Amino acid sequence: MLSIDLNCDMGESFGIYKVGDDEKVLDYISSANIACGFHAGDPSVMNKTVSLALSKGVAVGAHIGFMDLVGFGRRNMNISPKEAFEITIYQIGALYGFIKAEGGNLSHVKPHGALYNLAAKDKNLALAIAEAVYKIDNELILYGLSGSELIKAGEEVGLRVANEVFADRTYSDDGCLTPRTHKDALIKEGTIAVQQVIKMIKEGIVISTNGNQVNIKAETLCIHGDGSHALEFVKKVRKEIELNGIEVSAMRT
Amino acid sequence: MLSIDLNCDMGESFGIYKVGDDEKVLDYISSANIACGFHAGDPSVMNKTVSLALSKGVAVGAHIGFMDLVGFGRRNMNISPKEAFEITIYQIGALYGFIKAEGGNLSHVKPHGALYNLAAKDKNLALAIAEAVYKIDNELILYGLSGSELIKAGEEVGLRVANEVFADRTYSDDGCLTPRTHKDALIKEGTIAVQQVIKMIKEGIVISTNGNQVNIKAETLCIHGDGSHALEFVKKVRKEIELNGIEVSAMRT
Amino acid sequence: MLSIDLNCDMGESFGIYKVGDDEKVLDYISSANIACGFHAGDPSVMNKTVSLALSKGVAVGAHIGFMDLVGFGRRNMNISPKEAFEITIYQIGALYGFIKAEGGNLSHVKPHGALYNLAAKDKNLALAIAEAVYKIDNELILYGLSGSELIKAGEEVGLRVANEVFADRTYSDDGCLTPRTHKDALIKEGTIAVQQVIKMIKEGIVISTNGNQVNIKAETLCIHGDGSHALEFVKKVRKEIELNGIEVSAMRT
Amino acid sequence: MLSIDLNCDMGESFGIYKVGDDEKVLDYISSANIACGFHAGDPSVMNKTVSLALSKGVAVGAHIGFMDLVGFGRRNMNISPKEAFEITIYQIGALYGFIKAEGGNLSHVKPHGALYNLAAKDKNLALAIAEAVYKIDNELILYGLSGSELIKAGEEVGLRVANEVFADRTYSDDGCLTPRTHKDALIKEGTIAVQQVIKMIKEGIVISTNGNQVNIKAETLCIHGDGSHALEFVKKVRKEIELNGIEVSAMRT
Repeated sequence: MLSIDLNCDMGESFGIYKVGDDEKVLDYISSANIACGFHAGDPSVMNKTVSLALSKGVAVGAHIGFMDLVGFGRRNMNISPKEAFEITIYQIGALYGFIKAEGGNLSHVKPHGALYNLAAKDKNLALAIAEAVYKIDNELILYGLSGSELIKAGEEVGLRVANEVFADRTYSDDGCLTPRTHKDALIKEGTIAVQQVIKMIKEGIVISTNGNQVNIKAETLCIHGDGSHALEFVKKVRKEIELNGIEVSAMRT
Repeated sequence: MLSIDLNCDMGESFGIYKVGDDEKVLDYISSANIACGFHAGDPSVMNKTVSLALSKGVAVGAHIGFMDLVGFGRRNMNISPKEAFEITIYQIGALYGFIKAEGGNLSHVKPHGALYNLAAKDKNLALAIAEAVYKIDNELILYGLSGSELIKAGEEVGLRVANEVFADRTYSDDGCLTPRTHKDALIKEGTIAVQQVIKMIKEGIVISTNGNQVNIKAETLCIHGDGSHALEFVKKVRKEIELNGIEVSAMRT
Repeated sequence: MLSIDLNCDMGESFGIYKVGDDEKVLDYISSANIACGFHAGDPSVMNKTVSLALSKGVAVGAHIGFMDLVGFGRRNMNISPKEAFEITIYQIGALYGFIKAEGGNLSHVKPHGALYNLAAKDKNLALAIAEAVYKIDNELILYGLSGSELIKAGEEVGLRVANEVFADRTYSDDGCLTPRTHKDALIKEGTIAVQQVIKMIKEGIVISTNGNQVNIKAETLCIHGDGSHALEFVKKVRKEIELNGIEVSAMRT
Repeated sequence: MLSIDLNCDMGESFGIYKVGDDEKVLDYISSANIACGFHAGDPSVMNKTVSLALSKGVAVGAHIGFMDLVGFGRRNMNISPKEAFEITIYQIGALYGFIKAEGGNLSHVKPHGALYNLAAKDKNLALAIAEAVYKIDNELILYGLSGSELIKAGEEVGLRVANEVFADRTYSDDGCLTPRTHKDALIKEGTIAVQQVIKMIKEGIVISTNGNQVNIKAETLCIHGDGSHALEFVKKVRKEIELNGIEVSAMRT
């Protein structure tokens, strides 16, 4: 039976600031990427989100990012591979503390925002992140853009990886995401987004913005948990996936 | 044979800012309390300090503090027990990441500065910290002011504790440290400081500023690693301790 | 003609985090207290909020707080008067930059949260804040809890002050706010809140929770701009004030 | 009579961390660039440094940087021109607060580290910074790498500018600094550094690493105030400059 992991970024609130509808979204996903206090999240939010995710049987991962709260980790920072290694260790460790305190397991690691995008293209940065993950726990699964340098780096260091695809983003001929600055970057029509997902899972193919068939490996699907219609979209995607005979389950199972 | 643990705060550098002579001091102590990025330290400093301490066979502990870098964690903050629990978990976890990546063991936890002082007197705060430590790993040793609320809280939750004494501070009749605002708070004469230490270890007694004999439990001795004469003082204290037939060894051994 | 200033805390968003309905609330108030990046706000939010407030003819003030973003400046920090002086100067200056860039005027300064409450009772802290305000610009108006130490300190250093009252909080016999922990601390019935305001403005009297008449000076009324019903409540308060023949206008006019 | 401004980065301490020998260096320079709390400095350090500089008659400028304390503002961050405008305003304002409180004048603005280097090449970033400076006070002098985009942007918006040169760095044929990664980037021989400075001031020429004569405008000379030999080097440079009949004076005089 075909299966796909549904992952969602979580725990992005901070102090008095609340974003996302984590508690409800958790009912429809299989993996939660929890912010670790650098680009979002704080010790209290992390504690609560870890507890919620574990109680609902959702796999918990560390969502690691740049130390740039005001920019939400979305601004490129020119850090060295050594610094990438160090902030990866720090953030995974911090989240791991909450998971250990709850008696749960850390399942995976996924870079966030600008770090995700840079690690998809920069081999040295990707290797530094992959090595940090491996050194903390070589059974962790490294999430990265399908076919990217981060995925290759994970495989190179000996980690299990999860090739990630997106429902609401279009792809170029090279299998990369169309840049957000491009007019066709986003798929706003829910039905089309779902069709793209089903095709990627069933056929390993996505149709690029140029109309070409592009091979793509879809092991985990990123769903966005913020925005007013997020919850509805998550429900819809999950329902359609299951109606197509595809099982939703975390990577580890 | 009598024994004492010699502990020192370490890893208090940050970015371009360097303090302490960690590498050399590590040769004379048995336990290192490493800052976790809240009151001092950063991922790079933590990585380096953990690696150094482990390579020298020194027991590694998490030195947890208030999120107040500009105040070096020395200013009281009115946080709730729940918040204390959460920042304790976060910081221990972050340090644990570096230790795990190096294949070492986390040995102990010691609050820093204002958090140390508050937890010595505030039972609820002390219990929150002790519970966080216990939940992460119930084999960790909790360091606290000898006979303080933190020590009692550690024992209450089932942790092994380390009653901490100071060489260069004077004591009141109740076994507490003389406040730093008091003119006799500090012992500036190295020989007298050493004598106080020896007496505390051998006899379990300290002479208060009022001249009274006060019972005190001395399991670990705090040595300060900054300041221009720190290294010399550390050497001197260790030498005198050993000359008095007392073994210097970490709590766990 | 009787008059009252209506002030509201503004610019409390941060990065991707949005709170408050500043643009709409600005239409109903006479003074905006804008966060300066310590307890809330960031350079972008400050820039936008200053611009909005000035464009709507609302008096602009610096809302200064503790450097405690994760705690929203609501947690007491034990800072020295010297540190209070310095963070007051820094924050006023930062906001002043945006106002100067827009060609506007800085009208007032109001401490936020825990700093507001501490400065209401701690004379030395209050004096340090007042002196900082005076040194930057002796024509600034210092906002503080009606009759508090901060008001007295402002008068002592030679500043114009604004005695602040609250619509939705009850008062003790000594003219202080009933602590939030008290069951009757909040006035949840809008009509009663408005009646209290009108009485304070017209008669200089508030009825304490014990039922006693207490003298109170009401020069500015604090309205909360967050929460789902904030905008409606602001509208209602303003309407009722004006129906009672009281003019709403900023302190300076 | 020929003249040159000697500027030095100051106020780079933070909390318990002390760097530089500001008080002594101030005796030999004409302009101080004071960190504003983003890449270095804190309200207390700013207060003290502003006071010292003003008391010694040294011109005070805002040394603005990226919000990256742990990286000391030396890591490129991909911020938008709008964000550059906003962090420029914020930092200048914050420093201006301390200067206003002391009754002094703000003289100039100089970007720090990565922001300095990016603004030397990126026209849009340079214009955003220049416009921010102009909007706060159009009499401020904008410091930038001699002949860089930042200097051009300053002139374009109508600011007075200061073309900055370095004593201890080598230059390429295009008048830019040799990258620090180049083996000949630094001039370690004090006498050669001084000769380069004298030549730049007297002849408007620097000899590039390729041996070519390159035109360069030298209005202000950057001296580094940290490092163990900084004070001696500053003294030596100033002495040699004066022995060559060149006056050391701030830009404004």
